[in-house]
Amino acid sequence: MQIGMIGLGKMGYQLSLNLTDHKHNVVAFDLNEEAMKKISTEGVQTAATIEELVSKLEKPRTIWMMVPAGDATESVFGQVLAHLEEGDRIIDGGNAHYKDSLRRDEQAAEKGVYFFDCGTSGGVDGARYGACTMVGGNAEVFKEIEPIFSDISVENGYLYTGKAGSGHFLKMVHNGVEYGMMQAIAEGFEILEKSPFDFEYEKVARVWNNGSVIRSWLMELTENAFSKDEKLDGIKGVMHSSGEGKWTVETALDLQTAAPVIALSLMMRYRSLEDDTFTGKVVAALRNEFGGHAVEKSDK
Amino acid sequence: MQIGMIGLGKMGYQLSLNLTDHKHNVVAFDLNEEAMKKISTEGVQTAATIEELVSKLEKPRTIWMMVPAGDATESVFGQVLAHLEEGDRIIDGGNAHYKDSLRRDEQAAEKGVYFFDCGTSGGVDGARYGACTMVGGNAEVFKEIEPIFSDISVENGYLYTGKAGSGHFLKMVHNGVEYGMMQAIAEGFEILEKSPFDFEYEKVARVWNNGSVIRSWLMELTENAFSKDEKLDGIKGVMHSSGEGKWTVETALDLQTAAPVIALSLMMRYRSLEDDTFTGKVVAALRNEFGGHAVEKSDK
Repeated sequence: MQIGMIGLGKMGYQLSLNLTDHKHNVVAFDLNEEAMKKISTEGVQTAATIEELVSKLEKPRTIWMMVPAGDATESVFGQVLAHLEEGDRIIDGGNAHYKDSLRRDEQAAEKGVYFFDCGTSGGVDGARYGACTMVGGNAEVFKEIEPIFSDISVENGYLYTGKAGSGHFLKMVHNGVEYGMMQAIAEGFEILEKSPFDFEYEKVARVWNNGSVIRSWLMELTENAFSKDEKLDGIKGVMHSSGEGKWTVETALDLQTAAPVIALSLMMRYRSLEDDTFTGKVVAALRNEFGGHAVEKSDK
Repeated sequence: MQIGMIGLGKMGYQLSLNLTDHKHNVVAFDLNEEAMKKISTEGVQTAATIEELVSKLEKPRTIWMMVPAGDATESVFGQVLAHLEEGDRIIDGGNAHYKDSLRRDEQAAEKGVYFFDCGTSGGVDGARYGACTMVGGNAEVFKEIEPIFSDISVENGYLYTGKAGSGHFLKMVHNGVEYGMMQAIAEGFEILEKSPFDFEYEKVARVWNNGSVIRSWLMELTENAFSKDEKLDGIKGVMHSSGEGKWTVETALDLQTAAPVIALSLMMRYRSLEDDTFTGKVVAALRNEFGGHAVEKSDK
């Protein structure tokens, strides 16, 4: 198929190559001219503007947006939609909030354009050699663009998830589960690290990956990490997050759903951002107030 | 090698067959005569008593205990040790507490017997066709019995973990991680179930297993479960536990280690054992006391 790719960041660039490998005809646009120049040497056509990109595609057009969630997606979506016509399709492969995708689906529908929200997992390598994609949108039109997803995904690695919004919803919850699994794995290694034994963590991760109940891709990544730095001495334990865990917890709250482990995994990430905490100061002060327990003085 | 297997429950029975497949010479004992009769038709010798089993083995003897942790292990260990001689080896393949294994190692050492604690993961299928084993004990003597573990485990699926106690410690922490991973996965599906979308969970588990970050054996089991019962209507959400999660949390407390997600996963299991909670009654009563908020009356 002919596909317009907007966004040649680390995901969009690799996806374009993946699509090209599968004989799709990709026309790409990005504001970054370096990326445009580079990909034009890999069999991908480029367009100087979104308008030009749209004009190079035959109707009904299929445009894949792969830009950061939030303002960038909102801006690109508006520009793309302005140039599209009835029957065209926009796929948002980024990490948009599902409520934004519900809204964009309505906006697209007003022009007769089909909107698809595609949650994409598997990282940069997945984008290049086989991703996991979860796609919401019109069921009939999905069948027409299904080859895109079956081609770029690993075997059994794509799913039509239902009406628009459901793709990004499912990807969001996937990330929430990921937070919980990562925290559980990490706590296990913390207990090993404080244990009276002398475990080699790379070997532990390897044995846990072979035949055990907790074997998983995350444990494989754990093994990789320890193989490079046996005690992770080079890494500070600061756990940033990019938003989807927070959205999962907010959604659980909206739905009055108990998801305590996912919520706590997020909170532990926030805790890790601070060297000291105000909570700690307050509790230490109170122990001192009622019991005369010693406090540790800060330098200030 | 020649191995004495004590315990022909679901794990010991399958392990005996696994060992036999790998040309080991197994002599088995169990109080259950049915199991003894059955395994004697599968190329495994049997012995009528522990004493007879010990007498059938050449020195230095290697005995594998595969009996329930706690009283059964304690009793069998005492009986076996009484009949063993200097240089013999006892492997405890059950789920003993690592502190019991530390103690048993000392008791065995008093007789010059080598004790190995082997944490075994991978379930009944693993025991039969390739387990994951984590083994603590004397490093030199381990090399002599290493073929047992390399043969019964999947590739890269066994690890010498260090001094006695470390095998069961590592297996215990593995189970703690398992609790956290399972709870995280389950909370994800709970959010999907309460969502405004209509997901098919078997398909969700399948797509999450193919190319996504959270692909794992547990997710494969999730897919299996949903394939048999698409909404798990036939199963009550009562989450029993068999002790190793509790030990992990107790150990984290002993080591002053923050493992909140593993701890909370255990607490959520306990919560699931109750239809109603006293906590709930107290909070409802208090909301009524200070704010006049309505309470829901119980039938009593």
